[in-house]
Amino acid sequence: MSIRRTVFFVSDGTAITAGTLGNTLLTQFEGQKFNPTRIPFVDSVERAHDVVTQINEAAERDGAMPLIFSTIVDAAVVAVLQESQGEVLDLFTEFVPRIEKVVGAARSPKVGRAHGISNVSNYENRIEATNYALSHDDGVSINFDEAEVILVGVSRSGKTPTCLYLALHFGVLAANYPLTDDDLESIRLPAFLRRNKHKLYGLTIDAERLSQIRETRRPGSRYASMSKCRNEIGAAEDLLRAEGVPIVSTTHSSVEEIASRILVDLGLERQHY
Amino acid sequence: MSIRRTVFFVSDGTAITAGTLGNTLLTQFEGQKFNPTRIPFVDSVERAHDVVTQINEAAERDGAMPLIFSTIVDAAVVAVLQESQGEVLDLFTEFVPRIEKVVGAARSPKVGRAHGISNVSNYENRIEATNYALSHDDGVSINFDEAEVILVGVSRSGKTPTCLYLALHFGVLAANYPLTDDDLESIRLPAFLRRNKHKLYGLTIDAERLSQIRETRRPGSRYASMSKCRNEIGAAEDLLRAEGVPIVSTTHSSVEEIASRILVDLGLERQHY
Repeated sequence: MSIRRTVFFVSDGTAITAGTLGNTLLTQFEGQKFNPTRIPFVDSVERAHDVVTQINEAAERDGAMPLIFSTIVDAAVVAVLQESQGEVLDLFTEFVPRIEKVVGAARSPKVGRAHGISNVSNYENRIEATNYALSHDDGVSINFDEAEVILVGVSRSGKTPTCLYLALHFGVLAANYPLTDDDLESIRLPAFLRRNKHKLYGLTIDAERLSQIRETRRPGSRYASMSKCRNEIGAAEDLLRAEGVPIVSTTHSSVEEIASRILVDLGLERQHY
Repeated sequence: MSIRRTVFFVSDGTAITAGTLGNTLLTQFEGQKFNPTRIPFVDSVERAHDVVTQINEAAERDGAMPLIFSTIVDAAVVAVLQESQGEVLDLFTEFVPRIEKVVGAARSPKVGRAHGISNVSNYENRIEATNYALSHDDGVSINFDEAEVILVGVSRSGKTPTCLYLALHFGVLAANYPLTDDDLESIRLPAFLRRNKHKLYGLTIDAERLSQIRETRRPGSRYASMSKCRNEIGAAEDLLRAEGVPIVSTTHSSVEEIASRILVDLGLERQHY
């Protein structure tokens, strides 16, 4: 009989940070079964008491001590959670005293700032970049000169989700360009891309995976066939190599990993932190 | 003279978790100046030595001890960082032993999983949901029946970025519908939305802010005028209230906060963890 342990992600804000923190730690415990519950906006002692009730109910029901990952600024609210039957792993409790020691100053606690609009111009950049990505998707609009990154690859190689992630998470102006049959035959990029070569990044993907993805969009089409996918990818990789454009494969990488790699390789890190 | 202290976000994976963790903690130290640098893919002792060089250079340059937020699975790699002149705040070192005690089992360390494709079907859901959001943006395609959330509001109230965030981060099928002049005049939602009423969520925004946003898109237009914005928002709020649709204001809330609120209120949390 295996236990499914309840895990709570609790915060005075969105609890997105608490979720990220908890999920990262739980990836280290593969054999275990967890039942995750996110509880955002716990910003008062009263709400904390409600959460304690939920924690204690889960403890009884599961017959297992719940884990509580929390990012709650107000120590009085955290203290309430600590009276529960669960184990509270609180980010601020652990790390703030050590940072205070290094910077030689006490913190100035404010609630729920991590995923709020703490830096307005930063936040607006992210929203503007998202609009930019939407209007510069699949080469529809071709003002590539103001882009910071231009992703190049065959249709369905992962360009759009990666652009949106770069925009929404990092505020990067990311455009994308789908290689056409003409580009692939001439083994040459169009002039408006060549003059932006330092911004180009190529995406590739295994032919089998590409065929699968295309098949869900246009079942039985030539577009989705293995031979078409294999030819397109081969030609695209030849072209990108000939043009000296860096390439990353999206087959086994997430948008987070691809975006991260691109920012480092194109030296865009600093501007976007 | 004020010190600008260098902060490193270091990980064997994307370092996105380390960045989130560090930024959350740094929001607590408002008076301080930090210079953040993300270093992903530090997955060997050799790479760790390179990072130590960077840390020590920053310490000399700044005349201040750098802070290093890390999420590195391999204890041998973390140990190298700990020899640097910076203060290492490592997520795994702090919390893993406490979780091991609760679950009664040792961890099974794997590198860089937090933002990799650790759960393939989960990841594919996110990408599918993103495609869904793109093809169900601004009421263009109207198969709302398969949506899990339908955001309703006037043009530029924040529907599109919120849908994309819900999709890309949580894998939620999020569509959106821009209220038309007809809807606003009749104070009534169209039938295809009424039959999905339990999925609806209204977005509103201050008229001043809306006017600003519209102004950047169509300067000097009636569409961007304060009177038009005020009328539209007033009518939209009346309609949404009359129909019993919950409303959230996007004026001072980030997409993360709005998405978080919607998931809780519509009871979509559990399915998407």
